[in-house]
Amino acid sequence: MERLARFGVSLPESLLEEFDSRIESAGYKKRSDALRNLIRDYIAESVWEKGTESVYGTVTITYDHHSHDTAQELTALQQDFGHIIICSTHVHVDHDHCFEVVLLRGSSEDVKRFVEGISGIKYVHSTKPVFTVLV
Amino acid sequence: MERLARFGVSLPESLLEEFDSRIESAGYKKRSDALRNLIRDYIAESVWEKGTESVYGTVTITYDHHSHDTAQELTALQQDFGHIIICSTHVHVDHDHCFEVVLLRGSSEDVKRFVEGISGIKYVHSTKPVFTVLV
Amino acid sequence: MERLARFGVSLPESLLEEFDSRIESAGYKKRSDALRNLIRDYIAESVWEKGTESVYGTVTITYDHHSHDTAQELTALQQDFGHIIICSTHVHVDHDHCFEVVLLRGSSEDVKRFVEGISGIKYVHSTKPVFTVLV
Amino acid sequence: MERLARFGVSLPESLLEEFDSRIESAGYKKRSDALRNLIRDYIAESVWEKGTESVYGTVTITYDHHSHDTAQELTALQQDFGHIIICSTHVHVDHDHCFEVVLLRGSSEDVKRFVEGISGIKYVHSTKPVFTVLV
Repeated sequence: MERLARFGVSLPESLLEEFDSRIESAGYKKRSDALRNLIRDYIAESVWEKGTESVYGTVTITYDHHSHDTAQELTALQQDFGHIIICSTHVHVDHDHCFEVVLLRGSSEDVKRFVEGISGIKYVHSTKPVFTVLV
Repeated sequence: MERLARFGVSLPESLLEEFDSRIESAGYKKRSDALRNLIRDYIAESVWEKGTESVYGTVTITYDHHSHDTAQELTALQQDFGHIIICSTHVHVDHDHCFEVVLLRGSSEDVKRFVEGISGIKYVHSTKPVFTVLV
Repeated sequence: MERLARFGVSLPESLLEEFDSRIESAGYKKRSDALRNLIRDYIAESVWEKGTESVYGTVTITYDHHSHDTAQELTALQQDFGHIIICSTHVHVDHDHCFEVVLLRGSSEDVKRFVEGISGIKYVHSTKPVFTVLV
Repeated sequence: MERLARFGVSLPESLLEEFDSRIESAGYKKRSDALRNLIRDYIAESVWEKGTESVYGTVTITYDHHSHDTAQELTALQQDFGHIIICSTHVHVDHDHCFEVVLLRGSSEDVKRFVEGISGIKYVHSTKPVFTVLV
C-alpha cells in the first residue's frame, strides 16, 4: 500500500460547489478520488508530450481479416515492436471483421512509431493511442 | 472578489511529487492554481456534454475571402445566430486568406448548430469549438 | 471482401501537396488508406456523440490491487455490464499495480455508465473510452 | 483563387454510404467540403506536434479582473509574446469576469510557452490552444 500525502487546497466557493455536484453525478464517491483521476490524466498527458519517458498505453484497431495479407503484416509489425508490446487481445466480430487491442509499455516516441507502422497496413483502422501512468 | 473555500485532499505521496514537478515545469506557481485549472476544464467539458446549460466558447475559422460568396454567407449565418454570438474578430492574413474567431455564449446545442452552419459554407475551415465556464 | 466505391474529390492543389507529404511521413502508403482512416474516425466520433447506436470501444484502467476491495468491486461492476463487455485483458505490472483493458460493444450511453461505475471505485484510474466502428 | 487538384479515392461502399449520411446531417453540402475540413484538421494537428512550423491559433481565457494584478500581468505577458500575438479580443462578462481570446501566429513551441506563462498568473483560466493552417 502506498503512503498517502495530505494537503490543503483553496478554491472559489462557487467553483467547489459546482465541482462537487458534477463529480457526484459522474459516479465519484469522494472528492479526493476525482482529483486523483484528474491529476493522473494530467501527468499521463505530460509524459506523452515529452516523448522519452515510459507510459502504459493501448492502441485499438479494427480490420477486415479477409483482405490480403493484413493479418500477417500486423503480426510481423507486432514482432518488430516486441520490446514495447506486452500482449494483444483479439476478437472475431463476425465473418469479416476483427477488433483488437494492443497493450504497450514504452516511450511515446516508440508508441507513435508503432502506430505509424499500422498506418502502412492496408484495410486496418487504428484509433489514437490511449496512455496512462502508474503512480 | 470571490469567497474561498479550503479543503483537504489525500493522494499517494509519489503521485503528489510527480504532479508538483510537472506543474512547476508547466509554469504554475502554486498547486491550488493548477488544480483550479484542471477543475474548470472538467466542469466545462461536463457542461458541454450535457448540451443545455450555457457555456462561453470560441470557434476559430479560416477562409479564402476571394472565393464565391463565402464572406456574405458567413455574415448571414452570424446574423442568424445573433442570440449566441457576442462578437467576432477578423484578421486579414494575406491577399487571399482570413483568420477569424467568433466568441459565443449559449448552450452547446446551439453552438453545435452554428458549427454545422459553417460546415455548409464552401471554402471555410472551422476548428472544433473551445468552451469554458465562468465559475 | 467488401465492394469498393470509387469517387472523385477536388481540393486546392497546395492543400493536397501538404496532405500527401504529411501522410507519407506518418507511414501511409496510399492516399485512400489515409482518407479511409480519417473517415472512420469521423464516423466513430459521430456515433459516439449520438449515444444510441452501437460502437466498439475500449476502456483502459490501472489500479493498485492491494488496496481494499478494488478487485472485487471491479469484477462485480463488469458482471453488471456483462451485456456490453466482450472481454477484458489483465496485466500484473508489478507487486502493486495492474493494467487492464476492457473491450466493449454497446451504445455510448452504456459505455459512459460503465465508466461512471469505475469512477466510484477507490484506487482505480480509468482513461476516457476509445471507440471505433466496423464499416 | 487557388488552383484545384482532382483525384480519385476508393473506399468500401458501406463506409462511403455511412460517411455521406453523417456529413449531410452535420451540415455539409458536398463531400469534397467535408474531406477538405478533415484534411485541414489532420495537417494542423501534424504541424502542431512537430513544434517548429508556424500555425495560426487561438487561446481562450477567462479571469476575475478584480483579483490582484491579474490584468497587469496578462498585459505584460502579451507584450513579452508580441512577436506571436496578432491581437486579442476582450469581453466584460459581468462585474467580476472577463472572457478573452488571443489570436496567435507562431510555432507551437512558442504558443506552448505563452500558455505556460498564463498558467503562472493567479485567477486566470485558459483552455488548450486551438490551431489551424492556411493551406
